Formats: sequence, structure tokens, C-alpha cells
Amino acid sequence: MSGVTTSYRARDGVMVGRILDSSPEQTAESVDRACVAIRPLADTAPAQRRSWLDHLAAVLLDHRDELAALADAETALGMPRLTGEVERMAAQLRFYGDVAAEGSYLGVSVDTGPSLVRVNQPLGPVAVFGASNFPFAFGVLGNDTASALAAGCPVVAKAHPAHALLSERLAELALQALREAGAPNGAFGMVRGLQAGADLVRAAGVAAVGFTGSQPGGLALWRLANEREIVIPVYAEMGTVNPAVLTARGAVARATEVAEGFVASFTLGSGQFCTKPGLLLAPAGRSMPEAVGRALTALAPHSTMLTRGIADAVQMGVKELMAAGAELVTAAPGPGTGWSADAAVLRVSTAALAQGGRLHQECFGPVALVVEYDDPQDLREALAGLQGSLTGTVFTDGTDTDPDAAWLMLALAGKVGRVTVNEWPTGVAWTWAQQHGGPWPATSRPEATSVGAAALDRWVRPVAYQGVPDHWLPPAGRADNPWRVPQRRDDVG
Amino acid sequence: MSGVTTSYRARDGVMVGRILDSSPEQTAESVDRACVAIRPLADTAPAQRRSWLDHLAAVLLDHRDELAALADAETALGMPRLTGEVERMAAQLRFYGDVAAEGSYLGVSVDTGPSLVRVNQPLGPVAVFGASNFPFAFGVLGNDTASALAAGCPVVAKAHPAHALLSERLAELALQALREAGAPNGAFGMVRGLQAGADLVRAAGVAAVGFTGSQPGGLALWRLANEREIVIPVYAEMGTVNPAVLTARGAVARATEVAEGFVASFTLGSGQFCTKPGLLLAPAGRSMPEAVGRALTALAPHSTMLTRGIADAVQMGVKELMAAGAELVTAAPGPGTGWSADAAVLRVSTAALAQGGRLHQECFGPVALVVEYDDPQDLREALAGLQGSLTGTVFTDGTDTDPDAAWLMLALAGKVGRVTVNEWPTGVAWTWAQQHGGPWPATSRPEATSVGAAALDRWVRPVAYQGVPDHWLPPAGRADNPWRVPQRRDDVG
Repeated sequence: MSGVTTSYRARDGVMVGRILDSSPEQTAESVDRACVAIRPLADTAPAQRRSWLDHLAAVLLDHRDELAALADAETALGMPRLTGEVERMAAQLRFYGDVAAEGSYLGVSVDTGPSLVRVNQPLGPVAVFGASNFPFAFGVLGNDTASALAAGCPVVAKAHPAHALLSERLAELALQALREAGAPNGAFGMVRGLQAGADLVRAAGVAAVGFTGSQPGGLALWRLANEREIVIPVYAEMGTVNPAVLTARGAVARATEVAEGFVASFTLGSGQFCTKPGLLLAPAGRSMPEAVGRALTALAPHSTMLTRGIADAVQMGVKELMAAGAELVTAAPGPGTGWSADAAVLRVSTAALAQGGRLHQECFGPVALVVEYDDPQDLREALAGLQGSLTGTVFTDGTDTDPDAAWLMLALAGKVGRVTVNEWPTGVAWTWAQQHGGPWPATSRPEATSVGAAALDRWVRPVAYQGVPDHWLPPAGRADNPWRVPQRRDDVG
Repeated sequence: MSGVTTSYRARDGVMVGRILDSSPEQTAESVDRACVAIRPLADTAPAQRRSWLDHLAAVLLDHRDELAALADAETALGMPRLTGEVERMAAQLRFYGDVAAEGSYLGVSVDTGPSLVRVNQPLGPVAVFGASNFPFAFGVLGNDTASALAAGCPVVAKAHPAHALLSERLAELALQALREAGAPNGAFGMVRGLQAGADLVRAAGVAAVGFTGSQPGGLALWRLANEREIVIPVYAEMGTVNPAVLTARGAVARATEVAEGFVASFTLGSGQFCTKPGLLLAPAGRSMPEAVGRALTALAPHSTMLTRGIADAVQMGVKELMAAGAELVTAAPGPGTGWSADAAVLRVSTAALAQGGRLHQECFGPVALVVEYDDPQDLREALAGLQGSLTGTVFTDGTDTDPDAAWLMLALAGKVGRVTVNEWPTGVAWTWAQQHGGPWPATSRPEATSVGAAALDRWVRPVAYQGVPDHWLPPAGRADNPWRVPQRRDDVG
């Protein structure tokens, strides 16, 4: 088993390819190549790096249908979603290029007395561990890779075993496109296999890690990085339960609409979203568990999972939730072939939820809990007991005067990285104001985001230059500002 | 010994006070009080918090001479330095208040399509571990406390054992001043003793840690925080060797001036600066070790250290450096009473330096190494082998055309948080462009700074609000912008 990654077709479990894992020597070579690219990348104007990312985006779009088909075989996420996701990957590459060219990520600040110029500089090679569930948007050329290259850091990605063939093809296209665009050798590389991933995090030349995936996976890399002689940051975005709340007035106004929306959201992509709402808190006495159950039966999602392991974990997860006190309301059978999983709605009391444990943890897949609360105090305590999450959602009566909304905003803001009102959290826009992160253990760095303009901030650190003549400063800090980036100066109003 | 902190007069070693350590219950109460203050602090406009900090600054200035005298007894840092440092503490409190009121630390970003508003919010209670060497500027009311309060976080400081009586008095004045100014109960508190410090880092209510001090101390707290169920960030600023380079042309132009400046800088405050230049790299053949030795003899600093432990460590450190291959050039005797230490200059070859180990580590106190390099390549390799540091310094011939300067800027920027040219690094301005941090192990978070406007960024995390009606947003994110803070909006040019 060790030494080879096997690729399977998710819909029928047939093996479709085998990829040799990287040897320790190959991984070391990839890191060495990345180290050679540190200086050329850092010295390149952000607008020039944008042109590389734009070209890469164009090449990927040229191969949209081919890439989507390759991904669909390995992931069963479907062609409409996957062609759209190729477009999203390309748009993200362009967006991070735009953010780099805009230049505020460089954080330039100039004091004239005493003479101090502060400029962010790239950290160096970034190891990127993409996600299984978004083979493009969070894959080997996803948010982490795009934002790191935009910020001037070489990237060594680890191929994802859930889409090994796709990872190969994406890497091939990236190497070709970056070369064509004039990017230095070593700007991007890829390694294969579990051991190579660990080797990468341990490599002295690697300066930071980006990870999207499970809590055990993220924490393992975080521990590994903390054991290095030179500890490096691990930006791990891990799985969470993502609570959604239906207010008392909301339940009166639109219980059925919310039940249907909840089911659509938690079964989207077979429930394989890090932002999946896994827990609906609804007022007691309005039969919301049953309403959600009916909506699930009506939708009948027939979920195929990304891997056999995930499919098995869904089945096991439902058993664990029941062992922890949840009760099955309704299940909807999977297709029965390939990596099939049954979707399920369970109900649980606030008293059982308060015991924590498994009920507070993500069940990755088309599975969700409905919790009935008695009153606002009961709801408040249930929320206070939850772990940190990426998102928290409130459904009100839609009038902007719902009396529970204001305190729910505060309660959720203390627990999550993104609060949504009357909108389901699945779907993450890559924009300037986005925050895709949340309190530990949702992410290992709650102050950071893997999506949105601030994603670049993870890959830089500031250096202050004191008494340094202008021509010895980095370009972004010079008085003539050759890169045309925002400079905060204490000598102008 | 356990249960009591004893205060000594540094100049003669006489005991001047004993302070009871906090019990676990007292520490827990302090954290509970801080937790009660979370909401009121976060809901207060930054300009209002500035008014509290301004009042605190005024109260401290009213007690300037009393505080300086108290500090002088415990630290022997001298009245001129200490009265100046009280003024600096007050100025820092005002500065961080100004930074808060300016509001860019809130990082407000508004997208109109889709509707997303990103606003930083305070993390919650911050545990502050001040430094021995700056009883005011980095003490219980120093940079960490001031920036955390400015950012809207309650603070629980740990009293410093090297100035236990001063810590008590500062806490007393702070509680009084903050109450007078209208700050909520629990905005500031203090605990005493080693065990209380560990209890604080383990307390569930504590959200972040600020630390300034030794590498073993900082790493111990960092490990403790990493073992929590909810891991919290530790911003530890630790000791480093801080290289200074004299270029070949610089040695021709002003070897004597640099030798004298080096001695003045590394013996300042008895060498008890985290920014002390501990290592001078000078071209071979110009007798720089001897010149530095002569300058040390001429200055004759008579160093009294902050504690007996530090004085012992200086003596031990010189022995360790010699065991690692350094050779004593000159020593200057301490006063011989109290926490006396001999100042020392040692020389070491680049070959011995390349072995790493003790020669790469800080010797906290009036001790420095001079390393002679043969040529630029020799110098480049010596720098590449050094650990991360807070500062790196270059002395050129002063013409702005020194051929070594440009590459030295790049080499040092990869190793340190602040590069100074023709200025010694001791002395850290609290301004917008300051960066007081550096690569691991200089700090545990190289992207952060404990001094300067960005110090506030350590104590907040972003929350994005999606589809949230304006009146449910936090004030900083609202369209009418009641706090008048910078908002980045995608719907304005």
C-alpha cells in the first residue's frame, strides 16, 4: 500500500489509476527548487505575478471540460458543479492576483521621524494541503496556492489522494502555464503520498503550511510543525458543526421554507462542505424535526461520497450520534453502488447536546441534527456550549425586527468566523470582506482566512527598516513607489 | 519559597518586601472578573477607551518620581532612565489609545454584492507577562496591556518577580485610574507568583497571551497554551543575539566610532535590552576586537543586574561562550555589591560561530562577541547560520554607496524583524511603522509586533456578517459609521 496512491471512480469503486508516491529525495528536491525561487518571486512586482496567475487561469479555463470530467470520475460531484468550480478556480487565481497588485497586503507604513519603513515580505515556500471536497477551489491550485503565489511565495502542493489523477493534470498545466508566463522555476511544485506530506512539513526550507480538511489531519500537521527546530505557522481550516438557528418568530413565519432550505444546504455536494450547517436549533412545539425529515424524503439526495473512507465514516457517524443520544428521524438511501451513503436527519435534546462529545463534532456528509429549544435561555446555553465553527446562521421572520436577532448576532460572533442571516452558509464568496475561518478548533489560526483578500496576509511578515537610505529599501517602501502600492505615511495628511 | 515573592534592592541585595502569591482561587476570580468585562469593553467606542488610557497615563505621570524611585530600588536602572521610562509608559498608553480611536485596527471591509461586512472583534481576556528589563515600558502597564485594552480586551497581568513592589503599585494606580475614568470592573487585574502565571494560561476564560522575556520562559507558556483544549495564541517576544555588521568600507571610515558605539549599546541598561546587539561581525585585519575591548575599558560600566539570577547567568554565560570557542578580550568589573556582573567582550572565529549552539544564543547582560570575517562570502555564510533575531544592524562608510549594503539588507531582512543602518538597535520607537518581532525563535509569532500600531492586531479576530441588516451589525461596520473608523467599501471609488 505504501508507495502508491490509487485512484478510484467514486460512482462504482473501479480503480482508474495508480500514482507513485514521492520519495524523500524527490520531496527534498521539490523544496530545494522552491527555495531557489524565493528571491525571484519576492523581487517580482505584484502586478507581474498577477499576469502569471491570469495566464494560469486562462489555461485552466481552456481545459475546463476535460478537467471537470476527470474530477467527476474521481469525486462524483457532477459536471454542472465541477465545470462551475473550474471557473471559480480561475476566478480565484485572478482575484488573488488583483489583491496582490492592489498592494495593501504589503502593509507599507512610513514614519519620517524617526525614519522607519515597514514592509511585509513573503515568508518563503508554502506547503499546501488541499481539500477532498473542492477539487478545484481548494485543490492543488485552489485558494491557498493562489494566495501564496500572489503574495510572492513559492508553493509545494501535496497531491490529494481523493483526486490523484486530477492533481497530476492540474500540476502539469500549472507548470506549463507558469513557465509560459515567465514565472521562475520552482514557483510551483507538487509531491505525492502521505509520507511526502509529513516530509514537507518537516523540511527546513518550508516556511508555512496551508491545510483544508479534517480535524485529525490538520492537528497532526500542526503538531508536526510545532516539533520543528524552527516552528512554522500552520493555517489549518478544519471541520466544524456550523450551527443554524431558527428563531421563534421565524418558525411561525416560515418553518417549511427553512426545513427545505436546511435539507438542500446540508445535502449539497453530498454534505461535503466545510460550511455545511450540521445543526439546526429550532423552537420546540413546531415539529421541525419532522418537517426536516419530510423535506429530506422529498429531496431524496442519493449521495455518492468522495472516497470509500468518507462513505464509511458517514455510516459510522450516524451510529456514533445515536450512541451519544440522538434519535434518527429520517434517512434517505444512497445509490447503493460505489461510495454510497445514506443521508440522515437526527433529533437530539438540548440536555443531550450539553453533554458535548460526538454531538459537538462534525459528521462530514449528508447528515444533520435538529435540536428543539424551549426558550431563549435554553437556546443561549446550547450555543454557549458549542465548539468554535466556521459559520453560524440565523433564520428570522424576515422583518428585520425579530427580537432574538440582536443577541444572536453577538452570541454567534463569539463562536464563529462568519454570521449569516436568512441565508444558508454553504457558498463562500472570494471577495475583500470574506472571512473563512473561526475560533479553535474550526481553524488553527482564528485570525486568518483561507478565502478572501486577507488570505494573502498569511504568507507575509513585516520587516521595519530604520535609517535605511531609500535606494536600499524594498521597492514597495521607496519614496517613488515603483509598484504603486498604498503607503501609509506620517508626513502626509 | 513557594507562596511568596520576595523583593530585593538590586544594589545591595537587601530584602525590601514580600508579596503573597495568588491562590488558584484568586487567579480564577481575576479571570472571572475579566470575563464579565468582555462585553462592556467590546461595546465601548475606541475613542472612549482612549479616554480611559489617557486618564491612566495622566495618573501615572502624577506619580512619576515615586514610581521611578520604587523601580530604581528593585532594578538599579537609575533615576534618569526610569523617570524617562515612566514618561514613555504614559506616552505608549496614549499612543495605543490613538491607534484604537483611529480605527483601522478594526479592519472594516464592506462588500455590497454579496452583502458581506468584515469587522475585527476583541479576542477576550489577555494574560500579560511583562519583562524584567523594562519595568514600565514592558511592565504590567506596558505595551501588551496598553495595546490589549486599546483593542477592547480585558487584561490580567502577572506581577513581575523582579519588581514585585512596583508591580503592586502600578496595579493599584491602574485600578484606581480606570475606575475614575469609567472603565468597567474587570478591565484590568493582576495575579502574583509562578503558579498563578501557569494557572492563567490554562484558564478557559483567557483568550490570548502576551509575553516578553527569556526563551525558556516564553516557550514554556507557548507549550502550555498548545496543550489546552481550546488552544490560544501566545505572542512571546524572546531573547536573541541581534547581529551587527561593520562593512569593509565602514571599518576603514570609522572603526573607532563603531567600537565605542557598540560598547555603549551593548552595555546600555547593563546590557538588559532585548534589542542589545550581541554580536559584531567586523572585517578581519582591522583589530576590531581589541578596539571594542579598549572602548569597554574606557567606559567601565560597573553593571548592576536586575536580579541575582541574571547576575549569575551573566557569569555563567561568559564561561559557556568560552567553552564554545570564544576567547575573552576584555572584562570590566561590576560594582562588586548587590547583583553585580562583569561586562565582557569576547572574540570568536567564523568557523567556531558556524558550529552554532551557545554562540548563537543570547547572553542577557553586558556581554558581546566580536567575530572577524575574511570576505563577503565568509560574512554571508556567518549571517545565514544565525538564528532569527529581533534586529540586525549594518554600519557602512556612511556614503549611501557602500557596495555591501544592498545585499546585507536582503540577508538581514530574512533573519530579523527590524534592520537598522548606521544606527544602533537599542531604542524602539512606538510608532505606526514599528516592527518589534522577528523570525522564530526571536518571537513565537513573527508576523506580530509587541510595539507599534500593529500591536493591537494581536488581540482581535475578524468576523464576517453576511446578509445582516445594518442595525444588527457591530457599530464599526454600520453604514452610518458611528465610530468614524476607516471602512473599505466596494461601492465607492
